Amino acid sequence: MKKISTIGIIGGGQLGRMTCFYAHKMGFKTVVFSDIADAPATFVTNQTIIADYSDREALKKFASLIDIATFEFENIPFETVSFLAQHVEVCPNAEVLKITQHRILEKDFLNSIGVKTALYAISDFAENLQKFGKAILKTATMGYDGKGQYVLNAGDALPELGSNPWILEKFCPFDSEISVMVARSKSGEIAVYEPLTNIHKNAILDESHYPAKVSEDLKIKAQNLAKNIAEKIGLIGVLAVEMFVVGEELLVNELAPRPHNSGHFSMDAAVTSQFEQLVRAITNLPLGSTKFHSTGFMKNLIGDEINDVAKFYKNPSAKLHLYGKTEAKAGRKMGHVNIVN
Amino acid sequence: MKKISTIGIIGGGQLGRMTCFYAHKMGFKTVVFSDIADAPATFVTNQTIIADYSDREALKKFASLIDIATFEFENIPFETVSFLAQHVEVCPNAEVLKITQHRILEKDFLNSIGVKTALYAISDFAENLQKFGKAILKTATMGYDGKGQYVLNAGDALPELGSNPWILEKFCPFDSEISVMVARSKSGEIAVYEPLTNIHKNAILDESHYPAKVSEDLKIKAQNLAKNIAEKIGLIGVLAVEMFVVGEELLVNELAPRPHNSGHFSMDAAVTSQFEQLVRAITNLPLGSTKFHSTGFMKNLIGDEINDVAKFYKNPSAKLHLYGKTEAKAGRKMGHVNIVN
Repeated sequence: MKKISTIGIIGGGQLGRMTCFYAHKMGFKTVVFSDIADAPATFVTNQTIIADYSDREALKKFASLIDIATFEFENIPFETVSFLAQHVEVCPNAEVLKITQHRILEKDFLNSIGVKTALYAISDFAENLQKFGKAILKTATMGYDGKGQYVLNAGDALPELGSNPWILEKFCPFDSEISVMVARSKSGEIAVYEPLTNIHKNAILDESHYPAKVSEDLKIKAQNLAKNIAEKIGLIGVLAVEMFVVGEELLVNELAPRPHNSGHFSMDAAVTSQFEQLVRAITNLPLGSTKFHSTGFMKNLIGDEINDVAKFYKNPSAKLHLYGKTEAKAGRKMGHVNIVN
Repeated sequence: MKKISTIGIIGGGQLGRMTCFYAHKMGFKTVVFSDIADAPATFVTNQTIIADYSDREALKKFASLIDIATFEFENIPFETVSFLAQHVEVCPNAEVLKITQHRILEKDFLNSIGVKTALYAISDFAENLQKFGKAILKTATMGYDGKGQYVLNAGDALPELGSNPWILEKFCPFDSEISVMVARSKSGEIAVYEPLTNIHKNAILDESHYPAKVSEDLKIKAQNLAKNIAEKIGLIGVLAVEMFVVGEELLVNELAPRPHNSGHFSMDAAVTSQFEQLVRAITNLPLGSTKFHSTGFMKNLIGDEINDVAKFYKNPSAKLHLYGKTEAKAGRKMGHVNIVN
């Protein structure tokens, strides 16, 4: 098997930044491809290519510098990854990206492998809204953190939708949201973390708590479900599976084939962080232990909350992770803090 | 107080490299000053200055890029730090460096504050060797990992010593060696870690075990001793205190005013790593918890041992730290592995 020395990361955000930390820790070099100069990952990587995601010359140069590529968010154009894959191996592969960057393909895939989701419709929205009673209309692509979403009740007028595909998801009165991080390596080895309970504020993840506030049975069910998805989708890398807890039932809400905000607690509380696990998975290394050695929670520092850093530093068990972003815009993830017990 | 954004690190070795990781994690930028290109830290820092430690123009430029400086090994010329300190604050300060880079000054200092060491002599070596029976003759400066040392028995001929100062230390038949890492910040806050037991191989640290194999009383005594030294020397930063355990007595062997090899286990087993603690101490942040959440040990990967990496990766609880050095010379520290229970 090809010896891997340099890892390419598509995307310059905080997830790429933290992937760099762990890649370097294990002696790998990194190259970041970003369409934004001064993005968080660009300050900590060995080399940066700043170019548009459609710039094929830049992508070819990127491929020539690295032994393997991965991506740190799933809203990069599919064409970028499929073109890049002609020049260097990309993990997870383009097919995984294609499914997970499109809500309709993702829901169809999940249902095709027997994984339950909320009911959804991809057309006849007025009629289906009537049927669902309450529903969320979402753009099929490019939405995140509540962007491109409308909560609608039966009888509400539909917004102007334009030509992009949309999906109408039946509103599901869930008890809580949990997420599970699963890693799968080239050899087919799988490692799964225990779930965490997620708490949102203004449609953005605010906190993730370990252990999750669900029954032991449900924890195991959630882990098995995540493993099943990782296998069926042919994952090489890490995948976050967000699920709604409805009684003792789990409905999968969303997949993210990359390190995930709800997995940050692993950095200070698990034997192996999600970022190290990603690096191991794509470089043919055995996966690390997913055991949590500490309980507690992760809290995002969003927008102005970055001003609370001094307060958190006063807690000796608060581990601060700051992304090096200069401007604290509303809704912008500036950092996170893990409070370990 | 001056806002600190960029930390300068004098020295490009693995200790500087790992300091960079934790500085970046907390959102700081780093500049590394190294006299060797392609040194481990140069791959992961935001900016590197490669120049001789006596190059004053380069040092002035370094000072202009940073808000605070620290050093990652104590064998940099004293003149480098004292010159640099005219242009930017250096923590720990030049006085701490002066004492700890000179075995005679260090032992004199320790004894002046009532800290016990092995008996030593700085002249009349033949006579004192006779008195000590068995002793170790060491260069007063620049020695490390057993370099510049002779083990002598009464009656042995002395080696050719040249004009550099030497120190003759009475051989002390100790039960074990432990070390304690202590941090002290500008505000005078002190945080101390529990001791680890060190095991050497060929005069180089091989393993550090937590918890240390000594009585609870001795652990507290060792921590108090380290705190006392940190206060009396006026430390701002971190300091490793190596001690010989002789029955229930502790004799201080050596001080290192920087992150230390025996402190690496904190990276995967303590709430706050020694590197994060250093960054906190010199940037006016409150110190982090020194609690160990896991037991286990650190093992150095020296020279050819780097070839055992694959073996360690198969242990899911082995955390590998590789320094990115290309050539595995005998005695060279290539990485370390923390085995956490």
